[in-house]
Amino acid sequence: MTPAQSQLVETLLQRFGPKAVTTDADAIAPWLRDWRGRYQGAAPALLSPGSTGEVAAIVGLAAEAGVALVPQGGNTGMVGGATPPADGSALLVSLRRMNRIRSLSATSNLAVAEAGVILADLRDAAEAEGRRFPLDLGARGSATIGGLVSTNAGGTQVLRFGNMRSLVAGVEAVLPDGSIHNGIAALKKDNRGYDLNQLLIGAEGTLGIVTATTLRLVPGLVSRAVAWVGLKNPADALALLRSLDATTSAVESFEIMPGRTVRLVLDHVPGIRPPLGADQPWHVLIEAVATDPAAEPPAELLERLLAPALESGLASDAVIAASEAQAESFWRIRHSISEAERAAGPAVQHDISVPVDDMPRFMVEGGAATEARFPGSSTVAYGHLGDGNVHFHVRAPEGADPEHWYAEQAPAISRFVHDMVVAAGGSISAEHGIGQMKRAELERLSAPSRMTVLRAIKAGLDPKGILNPGKLVVLAPALTSP
Amino acid sequence: MTPAQSQLVETLLQRFGPKAVTTDADAIAPWLRDWRGRYQGAAPALLSPGSTGEVAAIVGLAAEAGVALVPQGGNTGMVGGATPPADGSALLVSLRRMNRIRSLSATSNLAVAEAGVILADLRDAAEAEGRRFPLDLGARGSATIGGLVSTNAGGTQVLRFGNMRSLVAGVEAVLPDGSIHNGIAALKKDNRGYDLNQLLIGAEGTLGIVTATTLRLVPGLVSRAVAWVGLKNPADALALLRSLDATTSAVESFEIMPGRTVRLVLDHVPGIRPPLGADQPWHVLIEAVATDPAAEPPAELLERLLAPALESGLASDAVIAASEAQAESFWRIRHSISEAERAAGPAVQHDISVPVDDMPRFMVEGGAATEARFPGSSTVAYGHLGDGNVHFHVRAPEGADPEHWYAEQAPAISRFVHDMVVAAGGSISAEHGIGQMKRAELERLSAPSRMTVLRAIKAGLDPKGILNPGKLVVLAPALTSP
Repeated sequence: MTPAQSQLVETLLQRFGPKAVTTDADAIAPWLRDWRGRYQGAAPALLSPGSTGEVAAIVGLAAEAGVALVPQGGNTGMVGGATPPADGSALLVSLRRMNRIRSLSATSNLAVAEAGVILADLRDAAEAEGRRFPLDLGARGSATIGGLVSTNAGGTQVLRFGNMRSLVAGVEAVLPDGSIHNGIAALKKDNRGYDLNQLLIGAEGTLGIVTATTLRLVPGLVSRAVAWVGLKNPADALALLRSLDATTSAVESFEIMPGRTVRLVLDHVPGIRPPLGADQPWHVLIEAVATDPAAEPPAELLERLLAPALESGLASDAVIAASEAQAESFWRIRHSISEAERAAGPAVQHDISVPVDDMPRFMVEGGAATEARFPGSSTVAYGHLGDGNVHFHVRAPEGADPEHWYAEQAPAISRFVHDMVVAAGGSISAEHGIGQMKRAELERLSAPSRMTVLRAIKAGLDPKGILNPGKLVVLAPALTSP
Repeated sequence: MTPAQSQLVETLLQRFGPKAVTTDADAIAPWLRDWRGRYQGAAPALLSPGSTGEVAAIVGLAAEAGVALVPQGGNTGMVGGATPPADGSALLVSLRRMNRIRSLSATSNLAVAEAGVILADLRDAAEAEGRRFPLDLGARGSATIGGLVSTNAGGTQVLRFGNMRSLVAGVEAVLPDGSIHNGIAALKKDNRGYDLNQLLIGAEGTLGIVTATTLRLVPGLVSRAVAWVGLKNPADALALLRSLDATTSAVESFEIMPGRTVRLVLDHVPGIRPPLGADQPWHVLIEAVATDPAAEPPAELLERLLAPALESGLASDAVIAASEAQAESFWRIRHSISEAERAAGPAVQHDISVPVDDMPRFMVEGGAATEARFPGSSTVAYGHLGDGNVHFHVRAPEGADPEHWYAEQAPAISRFVHDMVVAAGGSISAEHGIGQMKRAELERLSAPSRMTVLRAIKAGLDPKGILNPGKLVVLAPALTSP
């Protein structure tokens, strides 16, 4: 610990007690490594404030002392954004003790949740009041609201209600000078200058520490229907989605999977039966919901809207789950892809988006181009077609030692895929953010003027570089590729 | 003209010709005054670029020369945000020549519109393709997309689809150094660092000049129904709105008006018949729509959902327009309020928002408190209850000379109203922005740390203060009240 760090830790310990401050290496250790095990950091102390006032005091004193801080929620990030620097130059600030839902109103359809509230708990609390918090992802049992806001999280339910940015109605945060930004009030209209709430969403804790947010809730489910559709290609899948969107807003999921991925799942995961009899080149899972008991039941809605697609040949075959159990089994195929993919061997994974209209072309041509450029490799693209966001995996050639191939080829493959994404006007980080992992690629692929603006914002708000140093954008322009 | 200005004008004239540059005082004059006539500016030249490249060249050369620029669209703003400084220190940049709709797709539900496209033209173009651009306001025949984006415009259709920020899927802009920010691609998921699109929306041209945007379209209307409801107070109105929202997303307008305002309209505007027989303390206009031909017709939906409110006494009386002509006549009452209010004499007007839940209390108690503090004055609050945004007007006592009273009391009244709004966690600018008019009030009512952040952003992106000087936030902290 540097003298400045120990003095800060001592002061905080006196002021807030051992609940809020620990230097016990065993207690700190689990939080120094990202959950995928890609980044290992170090931190001489773990601070766990219990209130916004305590966060403000910590940041204010740290700013005075010139001590850097790394905010952390559930530590479920994908890009090392919450892992402290390896040199121990920063203290960890866990928001997990701030886990109170301050309010939740079914009449105003708003919840005020502190940063440490776990996603699953918020979803349960909303459901208990007959409402939904419509953001969901695999890490729901650990991911915290503060982290989800700071990374503008996406997930499997973005199609209808958008990502975290669309669901945030207010933000409370501590700024790098220790002052409190009070933007928590849910104002539907507010034009008082630059929107600091918007700036803090997705800033990965580099401009402020989110301490609480006001979140929108949506009506609870009355019923749902899940359909499985076989079709010829991604372009037809998008045309089908467009035809649904033109008449209803009830479709909440539209997930695309290539035939070989579905076969992989069926081979690897026991007890799953194929929804459609014949082999299909591409598969789509569609979920439609009803929130009004008097509305057309979603199964009837899907039947009515899928019929013309089957007649016209846009869809080759379709089945609507006849029971909730069957609906679950359809979803189980989709949710088992990661597991089946992992079992099939390592892959170079990409979290990319392009404009929705361009995604069918990108999936087909981008896959072919990658396989041509890296002979023997095989690509698979699946996921949120309606969001223009797919998982784009590139797997080692059959017979190659996958570990060795991965270590040797991964950087070149990622650069190749990212170059295609940029050429298509897309994003090299659709959901996961930049963190440590994509900083060099962001730098490589952004217009210099954009990087200048990002740095100007960081330097303007956090001139001392106190908050989450080394993430997203660094103030020194020189940066080497990892 | 300063030597730097004339040299810049000369260079631009040579490069882009007389279409893009004029120094003719008669041609410039109409654009030097805001349409309400509150601010009079001066500018030695009016620049009218025809392309994003020309805007970039203008800003780049102006930045080099240290010449300030004031971007302007339809000049329909409410706060003097597009009026140049009175000392002629800035050149006007009109975006009106950039009025091309680059693309409009009914399948992707997106339109790419240049900054100078007029709102009404975009709405018409969307309708021609069976879609809607769901933002509307009185100035639709003059207001431009660039201005609407730069002021994050609201209007009468925000309830369901949100304000301009919610409708913008991509932004192209020229930054203060003359570089082009290319954020025009409609990416539903994009987490590549601080969101510059969000920062430019509502920045009033102080951080960049918006040159084009990608805008979301929504399904076209199949049918609509308009209801007029009488009820006891704003709290019951909000309860009614909540009960509708809990089961349907078809309600697109929910406008509240006090009985005396409706009577004022009936007195002042000839040919309007009251929708409900008896006098009602408060009135609500509700519009519900259908976009799916097979969906429940909106008139039946409203009838079904209003019935329990009438039974429970939440609503005192209700009528659903039996024809499109009657629906129009209901809307005519709402749209005639401004005219009737004007005829009744001048008023101190406020564009305010508070959290939706708190608006009923604010309307009643805020009105009473204002009338108590300024004896003899009368207040009226009406408008977008579901957005937490009302027009809050304070009128001179009967018998007082309104001009004199207004001149003497307006600043104190506005401070009083704004103080109440801030105490309620609300915004002193719900829709109109800050511009010149509310700069002093923004400064007076914002936390100093917030002003520091706003200035840091402005200084970071526009260190020379080239773009729209004197609007929203100024780099020098000292500021006197107007």
